[in-house]
Amino acid sequence: MTEAPAGEVAEFSLVELQQAARNHGMPLEALRYELTPVGLHYLLIHYDIPAVDPASWRLEVGGEVARPLSLTLDDLRARPVRHVTVTMECAGNGRARMERRPLSQPWLHEAVGTARWGGVPLADLLTDAGVGERARELVFTGLDRGLEGGEEQEFERSLPVEEALAQDVLLAYEINDQPLPPQHGFPLRLVVPGWYGMTNVKWLSRITAVADPFSGYQHRRAYRFWLDEDDEGRPLGRMQPRALMVPPGVPEFPSRRRLLPQGPTLLEGRAWSGFAEIAEVEVSDDGGENWRAADLDPPISPWAWRGWRYEWKPPGEGTYELRCRATDAAGNEQPDEPAWNVGGYANNAVQRLSVTVAG
Amino acid sequence: MTEAPAGEVAEFSLVELQQAARNHGMPLEALRYELTPVGLHYLLIHYDIPAVDPASWRLEVGGEVARPLSLTLDDLRARPVRHVTVTMECAGNGRARMERRPLSQPWLHEAVGTARWGGVPLADLLTDAGVGERARELVFTGLDRGLEGGEEQEFERSLPVEEALAQDVLLAYEINDQPLPPQHGFPLRLVVPGWYGMTNVKWLSRITAVADPFSGYQHRRAYRFWLDEDDEGRPLGRMQPRALMVPPGVPEFPSRRRLLPQGPTLLEGRAWSGFAEIAEVEVSDDGGENWRAADLDPPISPWAWRGWRYEWKPPGEGTYELRCRATDAAGNEQPDEPAWNVGGYANNAVQRLSVTVAG
Repeated sequence: MTEAPAGEVAEFSLVELQQAARNHGMPLEALRYELTPVGLHYLLIHYDIPAVDPASWRLEVGGEVARPLSLTLDDLRARPVRHVTVTMECAGNGRARMERRPLSQPWLHEAVGTARWGGVPLADLLTDAGVGERARELVFTGLDRGLEGGEEQEFERSLPVEEALAQDVLLAYEINDQPLPPQHGFPLRLVVPGWYGMTNVKWLSRITAVADPFSGYQHRRAYRFWLDEDDEGRPLGRMQPRALMVPPGVPEFPSRRRLLPQGPTLLEGRAWSGFAEIAEVEVSDDGGENWRAADLDPPISPWAWRGWRYEWKPPGEGTYELRCRATDAAGNEQPDEPAWNVGGYANNAVQRLSVTVAG
Repeated sequence: MTEAPAGEVAEFSLVELQQAARNHGMPLEALRYELTPVGLHYLLIHYDIPAVDPASWRLEVGGEVARPLSLTLDDLRARPVRHVTVTMECAGNGRARMERRPLSQPWLHEAVGTARWGGVPLADLLTDAGVGERARELVFTGLDRGLEGGEEQEFERSLPVEEALAQDVLLAYEINDQPLPPQHGFPLRLVVPGWYGMTNVKWLSRITAVADPFSGYQHRRAYRFWLDEDDEGRPLGRMQPRALMVPPGVPEFPSRRRLLPQGPTLLEGRAWSGFAEIAEVEVSDDGGENWRAADLDPPISPWAWRGWRYEWKPPGEGTYELRCRATDAAGNEQPDEPAWNVGGYANNAVQRLSVTVAG
């Protein structure tokens, strides 16, 4: 058996493997693509992918609204379309690097992807429905059903009304200019730029304007950031900054150790934050002692990752621990070590990658 | 921590999780699709997905041939196209259910998918090249590179000449009528209907006719069926029969336990074999004591899975172990328990699924 490197979590359970076998990460070499090809974008299917008949499917908009709506997919397609390029990351990305983590999807670093979503601006639809003055939040209900914490439920999350009215929030029926495939929420999903994936409800069937703060399971218990069991916690929201690099050289099978020849190597990757534009990406080749600034590509969208590159000249043969880290324009940074929390969420500790330079 | 059911492997290593995070299984509810949507088909990326520039890419055909070829993607697209619908399964499917398995990709059941591949019949190209009388095998070389068993290598597998000349063997540049995406082998891959995935070389760059049996790493050591370390073994080839079912009811998160209401439930799924048509699928609801025949759908292709369905009437509330198993027309069956082998390959033991019927 190959030993886990010092400081690494070494063992995972069958329940975690069952999740990992279902849910799809983005292999990190796919950081080379500005838009993630369909099939490489990360996927977290919380329960099962539901079978949806587009002929009978409707989007219902109700609750505290003046004019409830019931819309077919054709109704939505007949409205003006908007396209937004968005980097989306699972709130559980990095969980597998945490000790004492809960049984859930054990992501390492790869729960991310960037897509060009096409659909109807949510604000336009809400204007048509006439959201009432009493409404404080909008609850988004998907068709995916399961049992969790003893409650049988449909997957549901809410957004404050003012967040829902932001102009780039979409009800998307296209990804990368193709119809949504089943696994990304066919026929319709919510896309909230800058927010972790759990907010971007897939297989959307109902939008309900509510006067009281939503207290469904996925807000109250799951997808909540708690420092300990006594902490009141808060629902997860925007993505913390993170930089990732394309692993350089070639991999060893099955260890995924990296090997590269001597000589200059272009290190490259992408970085994002849900709070502000990426302001800086730095690279270290000595385990975090010294850091050098990488060159940044121009932004491709206010909501998408930003490319970076750094020409690395390894001092000689040997094994190096490469790291990369991002800072956003609001001053948010990445920690060196995971910040523990009950749900194992939002672990944006810097990526560490061991590479061996030889011959 | 949730306990693993009796008889289940309970712990997995970081190396296995790293593989599981990269490689994509097909969530079993996607058995509902006759053709697996792109993005849900299983993927085993042995090393890294290579970056291929289609403008400079060539397919080279050489070795023991009268007329070596060097073809562009346009050259291939200009030839008559053939479409074949093929079920493809990883030879390592089921490995995670074996004890004393090697460190590799820990598939449970989900390493499968069915696609409509489009491309050039390999036999036509080989006719143009004029395979020499001395040639015994064709070696297929991909652009994916890595280190394995101490050898730096490109992924390579061979086929006997007579297998390569079968009319449905394709050099595919399309999947489900779309251009191949990077992760499925863009710009060109081999598709050998009926064979486990390792034969279907992706990112194909070279076909070499050879006079001696190929002894590359992926034949000699990996992807080989050995009963023990002293066994000479044999390269893996055709897919053993297997039936899988869509898990009925709804899942619990994160355990994936299934819950369903009382009353009749349609159990359905698909079954395949690389040796012959599926002749029978049977279902058990008592852990394999009694078996009932399922109804079979008409075949959709000589090389694709066959749908099956069975109306199950649970005798009452309680927890049941459902199983399904397939037999092919050549008499190949599925064992009840994994048949151990060094590489953890071809484990087609029957699927077992625990479901709880309540209220």
